[in-house]
Amino acid sequence: MGFTELAKQMLPAVENTLKDFVNQEIPEQYAGVHEMMVYHLGWEKHDIEATAQGKRIRPLMVLMSTALFQSNWKIALPAAAAVELLHNFSLIHDDIEDHSELRRGRKTVWRIWGVPQAINTGDAMFTLSQISLLKLSNSVSDKITLEGMQLFNKTCFELTGGQYLDMNFETQNTVSIESYFHMISGKTAALLSASAELGAVIADTNPNNRSALRQFGNSLGLAFQIWDDWLGIWGDESQTGKSASSDLMNGKKTLPILFALAQKKDFYRLVNQKGFNFEESQISRMMDCLKNDGAKAYTEKLAHEYTSQAIQSIESLSDVDSEIKTSILELTIQLLNRNN
Amino acid sequence: MGFTELAKQMLPAVENTLKDFVNQEIPEQYAGVHEMMVYHLGWEKHDIEATAQGKRIRPLMVLMSTALFQSNWKIALPAAAAVELLHNFSLIHDDIEDHSELRRGRKTVWRIWGVPQAINTGDAMFTLSQISLLKLSNSVSDKITLEGMQLFNKTCFELTGGQYLDMNFETQNTVSIESYFHMISGKTAALLSASAELGAVIADTNPNNRSALRQFGNSLGLAFQIWDDWLGIWGDESQTGKSASSDLMNGKKTLPILFALAQKKDFYRLVNQKGFNFEESQISRMMDCLKNDGAKAYTEKLAHEYTSQAIQSIESLSDVDSEIKTSILELTIQLLNRNN
Repeated sequence: MGFTELAKQMLPAVENTLKDFVNQEIPEQYAGVHEMMVYHLGWEKHDIEATAQGKRIRPLMVLMSTALFQSNWKIALPAAAAVELLHNFSLIHDDIEDHSELRRGRKTVWRIWGVPQAINTGDAMFTLSQISLLKLSNSVSDKITLEGMQLFNKTCFELTGGQYLDMNFETQNTVSIESYFHMISGKTAALLSASAELGAVIADTNPNNRSALRQFGNSLGLAFQIWDDWLGIWGDESQTGKSASSDLMNGKKTLPILFALAQKKDFYRLVNQKGFNFEESQISRMMDCLKNDGAKAYTEKLAHEYTSQAIQSIESLSDVDSEIKTSILELTIQLLNRNN
Repeated sequence: MGFTELAKQMLPAVENTLKDFVNQEIPEQYAGVHEMMVYHLGWEKHDIEATAQGKRIRPLMVLMSTALFQSNWKIALPAAAAVELLHNFSLIHDDIEDHSELRRGRKTVWRIWGVPQAINTGDAMFTLSQISLLKLSNSVSDKITLEGMQLFNKTCFELTGGQYLDMNFETQNTVSIESYFHMISGKTAALLSASAELGAVIADTNPNNRSALRQFGNSLGLAFQIWDDWLGIWGDESQTGKSASSDLMNGKKTLPILFALAQKKDFYRLVNQKGFNFEESQISRMMDCLKNDGAKAYTEKLAHEYTSQAIQSIESLSDVDSEIKTSILELTIQLLNRNN
């Protein structure tokens, strides 16, 4: 069974679990909280469902990781719902913190209901993610449920740490590549890593497999974010949906830019002269400088290195369902060959 | 041993647990998050420690509740720290949502570090509260730890529900007394109730005792909030630190006001004529109307009823340490005879 067929089974199961859970847990007197969550999760308008819902990568990761070791991957559904709720809670709050008015092509929660209600709805969704994960105890031992809770909350903390660093970068003139990696480790890689590891915890596999899946998720997350940075500059505007130059014009401190600045060559001199307040006419010159300073090649090299590491981690697993393993490799390559 | 001596043992234990935990859990790279938490928790300036820290009522409630059934109340310290962190997370976010610039006489976190970092620090503290509670598993069974986590997260959700209703009230012309009770049940009573119940869960006492402590915390929380509403109108300004008339002038929908409006007598007519935009010179007339319409007597009656219920719940406990029981009764009466 390839990734596409597997996803066709797993994605509706994730969606049903999420919907049932959100509907059951929110009593009538908090109907407004329910409304905001349903909107943010992309369910309120069926015709735009696919785009408004996000890709549900993290819950897929949990389920596929469990499926590697046991056919009844459905026992992991409460954890799959939990990671998706956690991810979406962080998006609701990030959108406020970054003052983003649009998410998946629609107005953000704070933009419609205001900042106070959006903060509170994020908090409520954070809590629901914990309650969902606790439901694991219906199908696995108390010990495993607690291990899952510990891993989950360690990850929540890393998410907030990554977000703290990201916001701090905006106020700093220089950011080291080391700090950048701290930031994306927390903000992007931590939850992908925890999702893959959670599946292993639930399947109660051996420590080597658990560690390999944690490393897989981490490498995948880093490669994913680095490739996102690449797309932010060299991506095809018609595919990514945002101007290729937007990261450059906004002075966003992504990996290619930080690398080029650290070289102290042409790009560095250009920024030193003018700051990040470039006009559109100068973008092609900046992109040339980035390329000549080696930033494009460096970014591609790192994206490939982390992708290789992710694949190696999967190859190192023992006693797994080989079809599921192939599916995970397929997903990995698909995520890192994406052009949007 | 009276309440004062008991608190002298418990409060420093709570403070040390909180400090050690916050210092250990936050790595150097997130020093700014640590700084904000330490400030909010009132530790950064020793000379104003007492006022800036808050009363730590909730952790005391956890520890006293455990102490009712077993002398080694220290096993409940991770839960005591957890409820205090949860309470403080909700304060950090409430201050943003309510646009409050001061908390315990000092600038609020968002006022100093800005809304984005304050939201994120609240999220980080919320996560730490969960991590602290999970440490219970070092001293009690996995089953009890999970029961604690379930109760804790149910309570987190009620807190966000209460806050949702509270914010909604501001946009509504009329609020029913029933809605008001929903709101204070979530916003004030839920965490006091959970604190008392958590202590019982940790001590692994019988279901009757657990239920009695839950009801005790709930009644105490309701009485506490109703008395707070009373103080907001009839309290002594020199004791409460805020103008007795501030709740009236701000049109805050507290119990005496909602009761008086529902009577459709003098107070109702006054508000209907002028809205809530009263001048200071009219305050004494409004206070007379509130009293004549029965709002003062009604508020006092309810505060006393819930206090009696709280005391009855404590009296219904079986097999408890009688000294600790006396201390809890002492604390209850002290909280509800306070004048600030």
